[in-house]
Amino acid sequence: MPAALPLNADRLWADIMALAEISEPERPYTRRSFSPLFLKGRALIAERFAEAGLAVRIDAAGNLIGRLEGKNPALGVIAVGSHSDTVPSGGRFDGIVGVTAGLEVARSLRDAKVRLDHTLEVIDFLAEEPSDYGLSCIGSRGMAGALEARMLDMAEPHGETLRTALRRVGGNPDCFTSARRDDIRAFLELHIEQGIVLELQSLDVGIVTSIVGIRRIEITFEGAADHAGTTPLALRHDALVAAANTVITVRRIAEQLASAGSDYFVATVGILNVEPGAANVVPGRCRLVIDARTTTPALTQKFVDEVERESRRHAEEAKVSRAPLLTLSDGPPAACDPALRAMLHDSADELGLRVTDIASGAGHDAAFMSRICPMAMVFVPCRNGKSHAPEEWADRDQIAAGAAVMLQTIASLDQLLPRAGKETR
Amino acid sequence: MPAALPLNADRLWADIMALAEISEPERPYTRRSFSPLFLKGRALIAERFAEAGLAVRIDAAGNLIGRLEGKNPALGVIAVGSHSDTVPSGGRFDGIVGVTAGLEVARSLRDAKVRLDHTLEVIDFLAEEPSDYGLSCIGSRGMAGALEARMLDMAEPHGETLRTALRRVGGNPDCFTSARRDDIRAFLELHIEQGIVLELQSLDVGIVTSIVGIRRIEITFEGAADHAGTTPLALRHDALVAAANTVITVRRIAEQLASAGSDYFVATVGILNVEPGAANVVPGRCRLVIDARTTTPALTQKFVDEVERESRRHAEEAKVSRAPLLTLSDGPPAACDPALRAMLHDSADELGLRVTDIASGAGHDAAFMSRICPMAMVFVPCRNGKSHAPEEWADRDQIAAGAAVMLQTIASLDQLLPRAGKETR
Repeated sequence: MPAALPLNADRLWADIMALAEISEPERPYTRRSFSPLFLKGRALIAERFAEAGLAVRIDAAGNLIGRLEGKNPALGVIAVGSHSDTVPSGGRFDGIVGVTAGLEVARSLRDAKVRLDHTLEVIDFLAEEPSDYGLSCIGSRGMAGALEARMLDMAEPHGETLRTALRRVGGNPDCFTSARRDDIRAFLELHIEQGIVLELQSLDVGIVTSIVGIRRIEITFEGAADHAGTTPLALRHDALVAAANTVITVRRIAEQLASAGSDYFVATVGILNVEPGAANVVPGRCRLVIDARTTTPALTQKFVDEVERESRRHAEEAKVSRAPLLTLSDGPPAACDPALRAMLHDSADELGLRVTDIASGAGHDAAFMSRICPMAMVFVPCRNGKSHAPEEWADRDQIAAGAAVMLQTIASLDQLLPRAGKETR
Repeated sequence: MPAALPLNADRLWADIMALAEISEPERPYTRRSFSPLFLKGRALIAERFAEAGLAVRIDAAGNLIGRLEGKNPALGVIAVGSHSDTVPSGGRFDGIVGVTAGLEVARSLRDAKVRLDHTLEVIDFLAEEPSDYGLSCIGSRGMAGALEARMLDMAEPHGETLRTALRRVGGNPDCFTSARRDDIRAFLELHIEQGIVLELQSLDVGIVTSIVGIRRIEITFEGAADHAGTTPLALRHDALVAAANTVITVRRIAEQLASAGSDYFVATVGILNVEPGAANVVPGRCRLVIDARTTTPALTQKFVDEVERESRRHAEEAKVSRAPLLTLSDGPPAACDPALRAMLHDSADELGLRVTDIASGAGHDAAFMSRICPMAMVFVPCRNGKSHAPEEWADRDQIAAGAAVMLQTIASLDQLLPRAGKETR
């Protein structure tokens, strides 16, 4: 670790802990997007932004933005950020470290009396985690022009639409497309790894190579809900037998693809519903959801083809029918910008940090941002690889080290980014 | 089929259809035990009992009983009956045909001006189906002395105890043990088969050889609810992988035991819960419930031993832990009385019916009654083997044929049952 970081680790840590205090008391750490607690957390962030001299606004897509005008605003914006919402019973660091690190970068620049040529924006993206409205990454979708009008009609269980909720948190659903940006020259996001690679190898930071694409596939098996006592085995149409075989097959195919090459591949069956779900009734219907992630789209296709073939075979063997595979969502992988990655490596080296390249198995706001500008990410270690849980933990100094890489890189970027003015000269 | 049955098939059918009218309108055919609709159904049955000249009462265990005093009450009671409650979205025949057939037997005896030496009781047992209080066969348990004081503390989801509910339907929880009987000399139950053996072989009635014992076993696998994107496959502790392998194994072992000999054996995994049950989280906990049924207790032990061994192996392979197998319930098989079975066969032959011996894969009130008296059962065919579903169906004439076997047998029994008076003479 470097002897002295150019930023204030305690101040950064204090922000993270202050946000952790704003949680549902019986269910730490919960600050669900759109909730009163979420707005309370954002009020704290906005206050800190203002104290740091940032101009605070909320854009039409509901993103909370702190802006530090550059000496030459025509150069465009360097943006940094993440999200302040959590999953239910989530942690204190996922998303939050990225927002507070951005804030600390702005404060440190001010402390050092450095004024960038580019304008700096620190962004708290709206609702990165799956929201009650059935959508994730709402703010970064909006900023990337990937929010669609039909999505505003999605509703949470009590019936409130995303349109109404967006207005409630300060966004403007009537002109949400105006949130799309074309003035951002680079986007950087700091995040906890949510895995155990950095910890196992005693590394300080990971420079992300690319963010996995995620495909979600639903498979439904329809059998017959017969009496578990009076229906001989040979006459059954047991949907769970087909579904259980498919779970095993998904794991087997995933292991083959993951070990075949150097590409990242994981697949998971996280949802399996059994109907009617009674001890004395043969399962008549089973629905399972597969989550497949890779940095290499060709692997996803290979995986889906094999799951298609094998699940059909399992259905036939169990004498049940299988609906066509349903693609619930399909996000492409997002590659991090090579030039930005190189700058992050340089910064980490200068700071004397132990560093590795790493793929991100989780989705991030940065994936949407990559659609409108060069993007890169820095990971810091988290204990036991745990995230989305109250025991999620990252060390004060490791977060500060990651933030220092961001600060150093933003200072370099400010000088190294291609300048339209120069180029046309 | 015999040309003329000694009972009124239309009258019997009308009773069944009248009870079918008493159902939750949006969820036919639902008449859950202890509900207002259940009490409305019982009011109809009580009215018909009274019209048939039966003395109506509700015993301390909540059984509705119609009693036709015999010429020689000291001889004891011949009892016949079943239950009038249904599962949610159940059928019009399961249980109901047994109660209404008993009623029709009593009416037919009166029509024929036959007065039995023995007292005849027609019983609508309380809550044969799994009730909201977590208990089934409440009434027949009570009559057999198998209802335990602790069971009265069981409560439905809103908190009402079985004790309170039993009082509400006319039972007496303060002296529920008084429902235990020692004066019943024989018990007969008519029921739909709930399977497809009779239909496939174009038979009229099945004479039950024995009622399966049912063992319910819960297995819980504990793994780790890790991030589905960032946790490499080799580092996972996926509880669903162990559970899915166990589902496949249960089916395989059951098939081996069922095909190994002539004994009846089936096993089913009808419940499988996955936690936390999110697409992007590796399953951290899975609970499954196995229902194993056989007429031969040794097979259950063989089955459990193998499930014990194999599920432990599956847990080890998936790097999860497995709690000790938990026996949720374990009812022994109940053999039907050979003398009663012979009489049922004789009656069916006299009536010219096509008949077979058959094991009952479902549990029945008769299983509890076998603890206090000789017991036997008659099955009538049901369409496609369907029960516990709105499409459950049995033909008017086939029900009447089954009821005629009951009537004929009760008339024989009245003469052939050993008489204490004679024997001591």
